[in-house]
Amino acid sequence: MLSKDDETLQSDLIRVAHLLADAARIETLRVFRSPSLLTDDKSSSPSDFDPVTQADRAAEKAMRDILARERPDDSILGEEFATKQGTTGLTWVLDPIDGTRGFVAGTPTWGVLIAVSDLSGPLFGIIDQPYIGERFIGGFGQSQMTGPHGAAQLQVRKTGALKDALLLSTFPEVGTVDEAKAFHAVARDVKLTRYGMDCYGYALLAAGHVDLVIEAGLQPYDIHAPIAVIQAAGGVVTNWDGGPAHTGGRILAAASRELHTQALTILQENIGG
Amino acid sequence: MLSKDDETLQSDLIRVAHLLADAARIETLRVFRSPSLLTDDKSSSPSDFDPVTQADRAAEKAMRDILARERPDDSILGEEFATKQGTTGLTWVLDPIDGTRGFVAGTPTWGVLIAVSDLSGPLFGIIDQPYIGERFIGGFGQSQMTGPHGAAQLQVRKTGALKDALLLSTFPEVGTVDEAKAFHAVARDVKLTRYGMDCYGYALLAAGHVDLVIEAGLQPYDIHAPIAVIQAAGGVVTNWDGGPAHTGGRILAAASRELHTQALTILQENIGG
Repeated sequence: MLSKDDETLQSDLIRVAHLLADAARIETLRVFRSPSLLTDDKSSSPSDFDPVTQADRAAEKAMRDILARERPDDSILGEEFATKQGTTGLTWVLDPIDGTRGFVAGTPTWGVLIAVSDLSGPLFGIIDQPYIGERFIGGFGQSQMTGPHGAAQLQVRKTGALKDALLLSTFPEVGTVDEAKAFHAVARDVKLTRYGMDCYGYALLAAGHVDLVIEAGLQPYDIHAPIAVIQAAGGVVTNWDGGPAHTGGRILAAASRELHTQALTILQENIGG
Repeated sequence: MLSKDDETLQSDLIRVAHLLADAARIETLRVFRSPSLLTDDKSSSPSDFDPVTQADRAAEKAMRDILARERPDDSILGEEFATKQGTTGLTWVLDPIDGTRGFVAGTPTWGVLIAVSDLSGPLFGIIDQPYIGERFIGGFGQSQMTGPHGAAQLQVRKTGALKDALLLSTFPEVGTVDEAKAFHAVARDVKLTRYGMDCYGYALLAAGHVDLVIEAGLQPYDIHAPIAVIQAAGGVVTNWDGGPAHTGGRILAAASRELHTQALTILQENIGG
């Protein structure tokens, strides 16, 4: 298992994580907003719209090729291909395009999610938005973003009261009927709720622009990188039971412990059995 | 009044429009995602959250200063200051930050809207997204975008059936209860509905990534530039009566005449008196 004091190993993991993000940028931008995307959906039914793009697989393949060369003994958990079992106790958790619906609609709200984790959860993560050219990182003592207007430290803001909070979620429907009911109970008490941000919402929380992200039905690869980035910036991420979030499911991310407690209480009061 | 054949005048108007967009970029980026923004809201009540930023006024002031120098005899209709009455029959229609809620939340979905219009409606328009560095223009024979990955022609796509359409709107609440009911009647029939894009949704429609934008409660300065950009790219923009949209109110923008007809029929069947 990884010792937190092993700076050589940490540096190597950070280096490889950036290599993966660089490779995924190239593959995703090859397809994003291209004419080929417009006809590449697998379903014509509105109810199971699931645009898996060429870019999704190409980007994960490119990342797995780099890992085969640079970190051959680590495990890999990715969205698109079978889990690879390694021997080091470290797992690379990859979502080549988080937010495929946003990707298909041309919105720059999707992202490449990369984390390196052990059994305790994510150790280091990257949220990368290739089109804008923004990268948000967190873990191993680092917490920063780089983008078209330079670099900046990531730091959550200190909002203490729900009535002052900005809340993001991807869809107003948020999971099941019960989950949506609980979500909207929180949304009623905040200052402003906005939708449609995909994983970009977690980056905005880490950067101190919004205060809460609430989602449901997530996979582990959807949330490992956001956990690392948000925790490194001072925020709190749990499931709706208040426990560890890295197994996915129902997610509550908050800028402060106080906000987290207030939102968690409302979610629990309103979620059905 | 402007003759469509007056190429010298058209070139001058295009030149000035870009000057305005350049100036607004500087002023808006000075404030976007800055710490000063976080405390600059006028209201603490969730129901009338209306973040008017320093940038909003500074950007419109910068644009008006340029117009005073470059086009002193044209009229100006802007969001932040009183209407200026000119003598040329041309009006500059300015929204320095369309999507102030998105601006406050750090999402790169707000935009600077600039149009030059006569009594018939918008002649030339710009939708500018300063943070990403994207500019969408349309009118006087031009229809193109420039962004971080180069330049491209704008062209709506040829979606013919509602069941294949991607629909955007800023809020799921969309105006009044009646207006929301009509909106959701359309949303039920499309392939995918996404929220939160502010004026960026109109740019995505002009660029061929989505098929419909439906909104309500708009001001003239919210829609002049989008009309020019979308019409130049081959799309259709009207109000919910099928008439001219440049006076604001309820807006239906569509990639094709067929889609427009289908969506308009549903809106009209479902809107209360």
